[in-house]
Amino acid sequence: MTMRTEFPQLDAGPATVHLVGAGPGDPDLLTMRAWKLLQTADVVVYDRLIAPEIMALVPKGTAKIFAGKASGAHHLTQDEINELLVRLARPGRIVVRLKGGDPYIFGRGHEEAQALAKHGVACEIVPGVTAAAGCTAALGIPLTHRGTASGVRFLAGHCRDDQALDYDWAGLADPDTTLVVYMGLANIDRILGELIAAGLPADTPVAAISNGTTAREQVCVGTLADIRARIDAAGLVPPMLTVIGRVVGLAETLTCVSDRTAVPDTVRHDAGA
Amino acid sequence: MTMRTEFPQLDAGPATVHLVGAGPGDPDLLTMRAWKLLQTADVVVYDRLIAPEIMALVPKGTAKIFAGKASGAHHLTQDEINELLVRLARPGRIVVRLKGGDPYIFGRGHEEAQALAKHGVACEIVPGVTAAAGCTAALGIPLTHRGTASGVRFLAGHCRDDQALDYDWAGLADPDTTLVVYMGLANIDRILGELIAAGLPADTPVAAISNGTTAREQVCVGTLADIRARIDAAGLVPPMLTVIGRVVGLAETLTCVSDRTAVPDTVRHDAGA
Repeated sequence: MTMRTEFPQLDAGPATVHLVGAGPGDPDLLTMRAWKLLQTADVVVYDRLIAPEIMALVPKGTAKIFAGKASGAHHLTQDEINELLVRLARPGRIVVRLKGGDPYIFGRGHEEAQALAKHGVACEIVPGVTAAAGCTAALGIPLTHRGTASGVRFLAGHCRDDQALDYDWAGLADPDTTLVVYMGLANIDRILGELIAAGLPADTPVAAISNGTTAREQVCVGTLADIRARIDAAGLVPPMLTVIGRVVGLAETLTCVSDRTAVPDTVRHDAGA
Repeated sequence: MTMRTEFPQLDAGPATVHLVGAGPGDPDLLTMRAWKLLQTADVVVYDRLIAPEIMALVPKGTAKIFAGKASGAHHLTQDEINELLVRLARPGRIVVRLKGGDPYIFGRGHEEAQALAKHGVACEIVPGVTAAAGCTAALGIPLTHRGTASGVRFLAGHCRDDQALDYDWAGLADPDTTLVVYMGLANIDRILGELIAAGLPADTPVAAISNGTTAREQVCVGTLADIRARIDAAGLVPPMLTVIGRVVGLAETLTCVSDRTAVPDTVRHDAGA
């Protein structure tokens, strides 16, 4: 639910931060609300998952603050990001915290919302197209399909503080449910191995997608048994999304590709495909 | 992934149908791509889940065809909808098939894409903000949150041809995974009962949301044990989304409400809430 006003009121209410989902990367997949907020923002706090195509939409006069959690000199911890948002917030200033995908699906959005609330700052949550939906739609992979997948499940491929992944693998190894792993490149061996050990057939189709819906998109398609080799061969980089399930087999035009521009046909289900 | 052209080329390529996700209902949650397509469409085929606020954005000169699968005189079967889309498609005509939420998450979008491909018609899939993300963001409920929910799972609350729901209830009764049931009002007793029988604590928080993100939004919050009584008391109507899991308890401003306009505070996490 977005606010009732067409644009934020500069003179109204308490300090507010807008936690905005940027979607999977393609600027055309921004919501209208996200686009409007980016056009009117005084400051945009963004992280490394935001596609440059989207940052290019932010007007030149707008302050941009990189809060990416990548390693290196510009690293900010989540606590530091929370503090930054609290410090920036003030009545009359439009602060947009831009997050990849949807802010409330593996986005740590609620941690920021809680920190803001603790300091008396209000928060608007603007949902976005989550990577699972955006990246698969681009490839013609349905997340659910009658007779093939009765549901879909999203999980994170990494844990807090790099702890070992601890999932109910038997529960995850359900051939009737599409499984989408966010950010799973570092732990891909563990994930694939545990699922096979738990009984998911080794020939279950898998798609791995890096930088989906952008010009830098890389896609590999294979099975639980061979996707790791294909990922290595194609040199996929994070952020990587892994889609596991029979629905992957429904996208008949898919091939293992490392360059989106080389495969315009993946944009559509081609006629007769 | 959307097409590379800013607008569809009237003189290019094979007949194409655009399968477009309309998001949860709030027009501001349309994607830019969806909005552009609605502005340029020659014909929009929509169903009963599309909010009137969104249909109001379609220009007056555009043909609109109601293909809603509601009961009654205007009922079209899925086969009839598929046939309609094939019949409408032709080179140079912009046909938009508008679906609630995301077309590839319980939207039967791939059935339509398959039917179109079979008849030589190309298809663009435009993902949307799925109801689970849109309706919960509006209420301040994160779908995942460190230490509370390590993943999220979407399932349908009804089956093909009204068959009995047949899920692995033990697998679903995972307190660490947020469960979102789409269209589950008719089978709510079965779903709640099976989850409790499978060991999910009866005091697990639950939110039920009808017509989320629209002016007709109705919300009930309770537990596995009492949400049914609250739904009845508030008179919630389909389409209803049910969110089950500890994350519901994180949205501290939630109350049982039947009228969105009465609770503007649910729009934000209020400062200090």
